Amino acid sequence: MSEEALVLTVESPASCLRCRNCGAQFPLIAVHACAECFGPLEVGYDQEKLNAVTRAQIEAGPQNIWRYAPLLPVGQDPETRATLNPGMTKLVRADRLGAELGFTAPLWVKDDSGNPTHAFKDRVVSLALTAAKGLGFTSVACASTGNLANSVAAHAARIGWPATVFIPADLEPSKIIASAVYAPRLVAVDGSYDDVNRLTSELGETDEFESTAFVNQNVRPYYAEGSKTLGYEVAEQLGWKIPAQVVIPIASGSLLTKIDKAFAELAKIGLVPNTPWKVFGAQSLGCSPVAEAFHAGHDVVQPVRPTGIAKSLNIGNPADGPYVLDAVRRTGGSIAVADDDDIREGISLLARTTGIFAETAGGVTVSCLAKLVKDGLIDTSQETVIYNTGEGLKTADVLDVHPTHRIKPTLKSATEAGLLS
Amino acid sequence: MSEEALVLTVESPASCLRCRNCGAQFPLIAVHACAECFGPLEVGYDQEKLNAVTRAQIEAGPQNIWRYAPLLPVGQDPETRATLNPGMTKLVRADRLGAELGFTAPLWVKDDSGNPTHAFKDRVVSLALTAAKGLGFTSVACASTGNLANSVAAHAARIGWPATVFIPADLEPSKIIASAVYAPRLVAVDGSYDDVNRLTSELGETDEFESTAFVNQNVRPYYAEGSKTLGYEVAEQLGWKIPAQVVIPIASGSLLTKIDKAFAELAKIGLVPNTPWKVFGAQSLGCSPVAEAFHAGHDVVQPVRPTGIAKSLNIGNPADGPYVLDAVRRTGGSIAVADDDDIREGISLLARTTGIFAETAGGVTVSCLAKLVKDGLIDTSQETVIYNTGEGLKTADVLDVHPTHRIKPTLKSATEAGLLS
Ligand SMILES: Cc1ncc(COP(=O)(O)O)c(C=O)c1O
Ligand SMILES: Cc1ncc(COP(=O)(O)O)c(C=O)c1O
Ligand SMILES: [Zn+2]
Ligand SMILES: [Zn+2]
Repeated sequence: MSEEALVLTVESPASCLRCRNCGAQFPLIAVHACAECFGPLEVGYDQEKLNAVTRAQIEAGPQNIWRYAPLLPVGQDPETRATLNPGMTKLVRADRLGAELGFTAPLWVKDDSGNPTHAFKDRVVSLALTAAKGLGFTSVACASTGNLANSVAAHAARIGWPATVFIPADLEPSKIIASAVYAPRLVAVDGSYDDVNRLTSELGETDEFESTAFVNQNVRPYYAEGSKTLGYEVAEQLGWKIPAQVVIPIASGSLLTKIDKAFAELAKIGLVPNTPWKVFGAQSLGCSPVAEAFHAGHDVVQPVRPTGIAKSLNIGNPADGPYVLDAVRRTGGSIAVADDDDIREGISLLARTTGIFAETAGGVTVSCLAKLVKDGLIDTSQETVIYNTGEGLKTADVLDVHPTHRIKPTLKSATEAGLLS
Repeated sequence: MSEEALVLTVESPASCLRCRNCGAQFPLIAVHACAECFGPLEVGYDQEKLNAVTRAQIEAGPQNIWRYAPLLPVGQDPETRATLNPGMTKLVRADRLGAELGFTAPLWVKDDSGNPTHAFKDRVVSLALTAAKGLGFTSVACASTGNLANSVAAHAARIGWPATVFIPADLEPSKIIASAVYAPRLVAVDGSYDDVNRLTSELGETDEFESTAFVNQNVRPYYAEGSKTLGYEVAEQLGWKIPAQVVIPIASGSLLTKIDKAFAELAKIGLVPNTPWKVFGAQSLGCSPVAEAFHAGHDVVQPVRPTGIAKSLNIGNPADGPYVLDAVRRTGGSIAVADDDDIREGISLLARTTGIFAETAGGVTVSCLAKLVKDGLIDTSQETVIYNTGEGLKTADVLDVHPTHRIKPTLKSATEAGLLS
């Protein structure tokens, strides 16, 4: 399997896989670690092709991630896509939230709960499965903290592929149901995400899984590129410019590094003015290895055993940790941390000021935004975008919110309850 | 309050409120029943203005319901809108579902779970609140079977209005949380939706609620027009044509009648060819008063006391019942019924063939589609659209789906569980 190279149309700007560590180049095959140094591989592009991309070309595209196909490795031909067509989610002007936090510049929420399975993961899975088809795979698998499981199971159902989805057994009930309903092989594993991930790495090496694409393993380089669309969309939705500050939740760290990469690409191509941006990260106190490394001044991340309610972010051994540290330091950002009560407050604050109901990961991000403002690390006079990457309905159980009144269906009861005063 | 007329911009095509029973006309005020005969009022339009609307004008609009502002009573000026900008949700080609049901013509799912609060109700609430602002109201209230509550609470949070939301106390926990998180006055009422609705009608007459818009009462004519956008969008997304057959869930019946009205309007204006369409209704066995009236040949609907898991459809005394009967009979459609097990199967069938996770109302619709096909009432050689109006995460508790395997994080355990064979 891993020897076959990706079948690309001429429109694809992808040219190779490149090691992020040593720079070695490889053909576009199903592999994610460098044969020279074991470093992570990412997709390399033909810069000439990227330079030829225009705003008008993108704007004429569909209202989903595929409008950016000229900047992605696969999916140029609609017939080749394996996708729920995620993307072009709303960029919501959050004036009431901005006012509470003292912003004088615009504050925006990129609300990715509007995707088909209500998390940003649909973006990466669409890239992974489209690449997997092109590489000749015929089934799909993943290790997931919940949202990826939902998305892989839903994508597999849409295209009629068998799926095997591995999750920690203690996930939120809603996330388990929202995978099981699509009828994949759904494997609950007694262990942490990191345990699950280790197991799927081993399974990926077996003959039995030879024709299975593991979205965040053997096709990870293609998968990860999907997160770039969260950078492209924000820039386009702001009228083709890069926001001065962004706040992004961190689990493996892939999302954060790819949004940063997307801004750099757009500026390099000349699709946006080359203005500076600062990347801020958000982690939960129960799983903050990247924040800890950042504040300790380390270049590598010390793995931890995650706890806490932000289960979708509970990756104790983040693959992209060093690259996150680099992006945050290079741009002059920071990484904040929110505990479980902060997370609940973040969810409530976002909901009552914007009408957006975020999952725990979004609560982490909003709470970290508030902290970064309070600590003077985020400048409230600069345009800022925060990323809500998941849906409140999936983690509703963590909240302690209830009806404010309980009455009988009579005017008398309503009056006694104080509703008429 | 109810004496003040709506402040409209010149671009609004609305001209009056008109009684659907006796045809009497009234100014555009906050009232929903005819002063002559107590019949329900709906918005009347200046046909000249409607005739001037072009496809190009609509296509140049935003990717939400407001692209149809030239066909709606309010919201022409973006500054006047009170909205989460719902709409332009995906029309998903359901080839695998179609194949299972024997379709030879295209089968589509209009997936309105993609709206901001994940149900079609955002459409009607955006219209209701925009009208309410124009009418001088300063707070909002509603009686709801769940989804409307979520949407009203979220809209109020976005615009900073006080909200009072009345729900039956026995709603699904997720729907209660997804209202409470926005911090409205959330009133749980011991009784059915019909009891709640009766109470809010009485409350609407009190001095204390004088400046409160009840979205489905005093501003109902404006509210109801929002559902027309579910007809407009499908026609536009099909390339400006009316589908031959549509299947629509029924609670009050407003949604069904407005989709039918939207098709009729588009054909009359000449935005689509005037081809015939059949409207099919879907109800749950626990609450099927409209289906019963249809099959008994009655013109009016006998109220029932609802039961069953499709709580969002549990309206026993449907305000638009007679108009639903008229639309279904006039177009040559029918109304089918699904019991609780059918509903669960409908949810599973849709999920595993399309990747769409619907709430119970969607399960009703899919199950009714299958029945209508089996009974030969839906023609599988004709293009068909079914409406998924809500989100599976809100009613996940009704499903009995689970992981298929439970293992330790070892190859040995995976092998023993049969995952490698
Ligand atoms: C809702 C949500 N937000 C953010 C992330 C972080 O993504 P990454 O692993 O790319 O850092 C995840 C990962 O699972 C997630 O589910
Ligand atoms: C998910 C869903 N679908 C359909 C309906 C039916 O709407 P109507 O009352 O307009 O018939 C409702 C009403 O609450 C609903 O919540
Ligand atoms: Zn290397
Ligand atoms: Zn009348």
